[in-house]
Amino acid sequence: MALDYLFRPRSIAVVGASRNREKVGNVLFRNISSTFRGKVYPVNNKSEVIEGVKSFKSLKDIQDDIDLVVVSVPRESVKEVMEEAGEKNVKSAIVITSGFREVGEDGERLEKELVEVAHKHGIRFLGPNTMGLLTPDYNGTFAFADVRRGEIALVVQSGGIGAYMLNWAQRSRTGISFLVSLGNQSDVREYEIIDYLSRDPETKAIFVYIEGISDGEKFLQTMPDATSRKPVIFIKGGATAQSAEAVKTHTGSLAGSYEIFKAAIRTVGGIFVENLRDFLDLSKLVNSSEPIRNEILVVTNSGGHGVLTSDAIYRSGLSLVKIPERLNLELRNVLPPQSLAKNPLDLSGDAGRDRYLSALKIVSDLDCTKLVIVQSLPFISCTEVAKVLLNFKGKGIIGVTMGYDEDSASRILESASIPVFTFPEEAVRAISTMVNKPTPRRKVRISQPINSALELTNGKSVLSDYDGLKLMELYGIRTPKWGLAESYEDAQRIADSIGYPVVMKISTDQPVHKTELKGVYMNVERDAIKDTFSKLTKISKRVMIQEQLTGLEAYVGGIKDPVFGHTVVVGVGGIYLEVLKSVSYGIAPVYEDEAVEMVKESKLLDMITARKRGYDQGSLIRTVSNVSRLILDLNVKEMDINPLIVNDKGAFAVDVRVVF
Amino acid sequence: MALDYLFRPRSIAVVGASRNREKVGNVLFRNISSTFRGKVYPVNNKSEVIEGVKSFKSLKDIQDDIDLVVVSVPRESVKEVMEEAGEKNVKSAIVITSGFREVGEDGERLEKELVEVAHKHGIRFLGPNTMGLLTPDYNGTFAFADVRRGEIALVVQSGGIGAYMLNWAQRSRTGISFLVSLGNQSDVREYEIIDYLSRDPETKAIFVYIEGISDGEKFLQTMPDATSRKPVIFIKGGATAQSAEAVKTHTGSLAGSYEIFKAAIRTVGGIFVENLRDFLDLSKLVNSSEPIRNEILVVTNSGGHGVLTSDAIYRSGLSLVKIPERLNLELRNVLPPQSLAKNPLDLSGDAGRDRYLSALKIVSDLDCTKLVIVQSLPFISCTEVAKVLLNFKGKGIIGVTMGYDEDSASRILESASIPVFTFPEEAVRAISTMVNKPTPRRKVRISQPINSALELTNGKSVLSDYDGLKLMELYGIRTPKWGLAESYEDAQRIADSIGYPVVMKISTDQPVHKTELKGVYMNVERDAIKDTFSKLTKISKRVMIQEQLTGLEAYVGGIKDPVFGHTVVVGVGGIYLEVLKSVSYGIAPVYEDEAVEMVKESKLLDMITARKRGYDQGSLIRTVSNVSRLILDLNVKEMDINPLIVNDKGAFAVDVRVVF
Repeated sequence: MALDYLFRPRSIAVVGASRNREKVGNVLFRNISSTFRGKVYPVNNKSEVIEGVKSFKSLKDIQDDIDLVVVSVPRESVKEVMEEAGEKNVKSAIVITSGFREVGEDGERLEKELVEVAHKHGIRFLGPNTMGLLTPDYNGTFAFADVRRGEIALVVQSGGIGAYMLNWAQRSRTGISFLVSLGNQSDVREYEIIDYLSRDPETKAIFVYIEGISDGEKFLQTMPDATSRKPVIFIKGGATAQSAEAVKTHTGSLAGSYEIFKAAIRTVGGIFVENLRDFLDLSKLVNSSEPIRNEILVVTNSGGHGVLTSDAIYRSGLSLVKIPERLNLELRNVLPPQSLAKNPLDLSGDAGRDRYLSALKIVSDLDCTKLVIVQSLPFISCTEVAKVLLNFKGKGIIGVTMGYDEDSASRILESASIPVFTFPEEAVRAISTMVNKPTPRRKVRISQPINSALELTNGKSVLSDYDGLKLMELYGIRTPKWGLAESYEDAQRIADSIGYPVVMKISTDQPVHKTELKGVYMNVERDAIKDTFSKLTKISKRVMIQEQLTGLEAYVGGIKDPVFGHTVVVGVGGIYLEVLKSVSYGIAPVYEDEAVEMVKESKLLDMITARKRGYDQGSLIRTVSNVSRLILDLNVKEMDINPLIVNDKGAFAVDVRVVF
Repeated sequence: MALDYLFRPRSIAVVGASRNREKVGNVLFRNISSTFRGKVYPVNNKSEVIEGVKSFKSLKDIQDDIDLVVVSVPRESVKEVMEEAGEKNVKSAIVITSGFREVGEDGERLEKELVEVAHKHGIRFLGPNTMGLLTPDYNGTFAFADVRRGEIALVVQSGGIGAYMLNWAQRSRTGISFLVSLGNQSDVREYEIIDYLSRDPETKAIFVYIEGISDGEKFLQTMPDATSRKPVIFIKGGATAQSAEAVKTHTGSLAGSYEIFKAAIRTVGGIFVENLRDFLDLSKLVNSSEPIRNEILVVTNSGGHGVLTSDAIYRSGLSLVKIPERLNLELRNVLPPQSLAKNPLDLSGDAGRDRYLSALKIVSDLDCTKLVIVQSLPFISCTEVAKVLLNFKGKGIIGVTMGYDEDSASRILESASIPVFTFPEEAVRAISTMVNKPTPRRKVRISQPINSALELTNGKSVLSDYDGLKLMELYGIRTPKWGLAESYEDAQRIADSIGYPVVMKISTDQPVHKTELKGVYMNVERDAIKDTFSKLTKISKRVMIQEQLTGLEAYVGGIKDPVFGHTVVVGVGGIYLEVLKSVSYGIAPVYEDEAVEMVKESKLLDMITARKRGYDQGSLIRTVSNVSRLILDLNVKEMDINPLIVNDKGAFAVDVRVVF
């Protein structure tokens, strides 16, 4: 693969290597030459001796073949270096230099030129504006990276976060396989990196800090395979509109909608976390020797800890395993007389080493995760409990160290790859995240529009209300009975054929807020048709008459996200939509299995079930799926059905807005 | 005060003191005699020499006055010791011994007898089943308590949590003034302890781990004064119904509803947190030398950290302070040319000590909290940044240490009482909790029923639907126009006077689910009265005819909580009630200022505002207040108004259930 030259080079040149130990170019050269087993060539236009090695004036002066060039020269010279590398048939580069797209127009132009040169020569490069790359073979970063070699790969879109995570790995003795600082991604993109790492046999899990996805479509296509191979955990910086601004000034990338981002990660089977602690906590589980289950046994020597831990378990949707009667009897033999041998299993404050050993032995084959509170009390220390746990390695043990000597106990468990946390709530959150890892879905996005739909929408930038309704019908989405009237007689005839009472409203070519214009009348009976018609025709020439439906007000919409493209959204409709924001997003196309999950997430399913009126959930689910198809087929920019009335007869689009 | 004998005794006797160093009675004696400056008397029926001190056979043998007796004898002998203490005119006791209420009926009887003896002699006592009491004067616990003396008091309803918190204080170098292990609280209760500690000049904040409140009424009466004196922070064990079971087996206390508990804590001005980490994190702010503001300036040397921190700030509802133009210009002078000098203030990865110093000096007088990410990068270490921060003590500095040498940096800041966290999200959560500390409200619960309401409800255990509506009217709560019909002619006459369409429904003496019985017809026009009447009279003799209202469906209810008594609840009505659980609880009586907050919390206010139809929020707010008055006056067990229709004319109780 092309990226092998980047990740597994046989020779490296460092252009911009410096004698000055305070300079990035010096740190880089030292980091690489102290870690890389192949040949490393310093390049420096002053041709100095650098760290005892004679440097070359130019890449051209090097006789041997070079696989990778690491560039740390002033931004104006980067293009020239790339040109020389191309002439020397170099296959890959890391451009450390900053001052490109992230600083404004000037830099953007320079970056474009750089990409052109690289593409001309077929060079794949990381950066610019990257902290570099750390691999099992070499440390091509300018960071202090005295970390243990291990199985976790880190991909970061912020050098600062990268440096922090290396520090964290060092402190927590977490083993790292790769650290990739993405930089501006003007050539090599995050999805390529993640894909590459997912195929790396040394890497067990990939952790990604990202601020914006470079190419949503490619991301959607490549990630499902990557997440099928190993866990890929994402955290997104720039979660809110306001801090998205900070992201913009930071790496110049456009932060898409946070909610759609979350939906995209779920779609591709990635694990999404909201904050740094959760992010780092998950590394404990992916590195673990223990099977992780959603049924939990809590073992403690303190009732209060048992209570707080079960609180956390119930809140997270996990469950406390029931101890079978047989084991319960055995446990009673080793516990004090007043103990109940229930879950949480309270060994009592006077439990010593032996009681821990015998109780854990009894439950060790129970198929569940054993969350053991490793607390120091006068009769046992954290360290002693930790040592007991080593006997049950592989039996689903997770430790929560809470006491005087918790650091020492943590180290004992860590060395045995038994996950260890400092608070029960955090252990529970991490378990819950892992057991609820989403299944990856592959999105095949083909536009296969229905001919009549093309005719209906051809050349239009927005649809009139009635064309909107017609479009729904073409896509198998039901509508209430309706008709358009331009005269009182029409109105009367249409209403008669629909049946009373009816809804009468203004009919427009442009999307407007009809209610706010006082253009909607409900409950119109036969004798009020004339009067209502004349009121409405003061606002619009045309009047729409609709069957009046009752039922649950839902909302289904679609938008074209700048990053992930067509996305469908379903939620509680009416005023509840804006206030409660009880909605769920799905990347189009959405098939019925996924639409079911979305309707669940939006809480609409609960509402339908609570109402016990036999409302047609199937019709709602099909509508979500059909809308996702429609927006793809017709390249819709924005649309919504609000309300979509769901009742025992089906789901009906009452009002529709479509924008191309 | 009576509790002074417990908290500040002049002499202590330890009954059950033991020679055996493995026994609680020995540890207790050693802990007390090594810390207490007054006289300590060991009492042991074998009259042994204990730790070099000759013990007494009985309390009666001691010549001097005894202020406090600490009891650790078998449970059968505790009563006798209490009797002897009474005869010796002892004023207070700590009963360490367990095996009482928490183990079942036997123990419950013993505990009752113990209380009787103590009350007869006027002895106030802590326990039984307590880990003891740690004060600035003595360590009356059997825990290892080598903690720094300080300003935080801990009150715990679990010995295990108490031991853990002492360990935590030791490790985190947090200074402790008192630790009170509540035990079974058969005499001294948590509200007395908290009240006492709130008056203690050495204590700056009180942290309470509680599983159930012993006396809700007393709690509501005493706590507002305590929380006015200093922050009181609560965490509740047994948050969910299932783990409430664990609480029951643990200390035998009844866990009330979690949501009502939260409302009660807010009412009395307490701070409520959901998990142990948040609980412990708050100790950093209450111990702080820094003013805490809700406007934040983020200072960092890494863009990614700035982004994640502003994400957390916006999510929590706090805000990023705007840097004034004047300071912005000054900052540009000390920052690299490409820096924007915005908030988050990114000093860049190459910032050294001088840049930190000059930038912080420029912003130091800005009236906001300065959240400084203390990160190590090649050009500065965490320790160096921490030392810079010491120059700005008292200027609202909070540190988040994230780097290689973060432990050493944390210690530097801690020693200066500058709060320090390990993740920005946690710092932000703690700040947000502190700045949103609720205002204490005093609840005066007097029953002043209206005479006509007493007449209406006298002797009834439930109200019929029409008496329910009448009761509403007596309490100033509006109802739709309504009437009862037992004949078709009545029905016609009533409907005519109300105006069409009307609602017709069955009328019952008992609360029933009328819709499920198919006993409700909406939109009934004049010509359908007869037919509808005959359908309904197949289910009930009497038919209720009501004005048909449209508007927002709200819900207002009241219950008598077993712990906190009468409580009112308001929320989104209809099916949304059960599914969305968008409700707010308030301890009765609720006046209009508090009702406004409840209507906000339930999101009803947002819905009314979103609808822009001039709906009468005032009427909704008054209804909440009136219901709270009503349930108190008439000692209602349970009631609900569902729906309460809110529209531009007011808020109208459509269907009412009242149970006494």
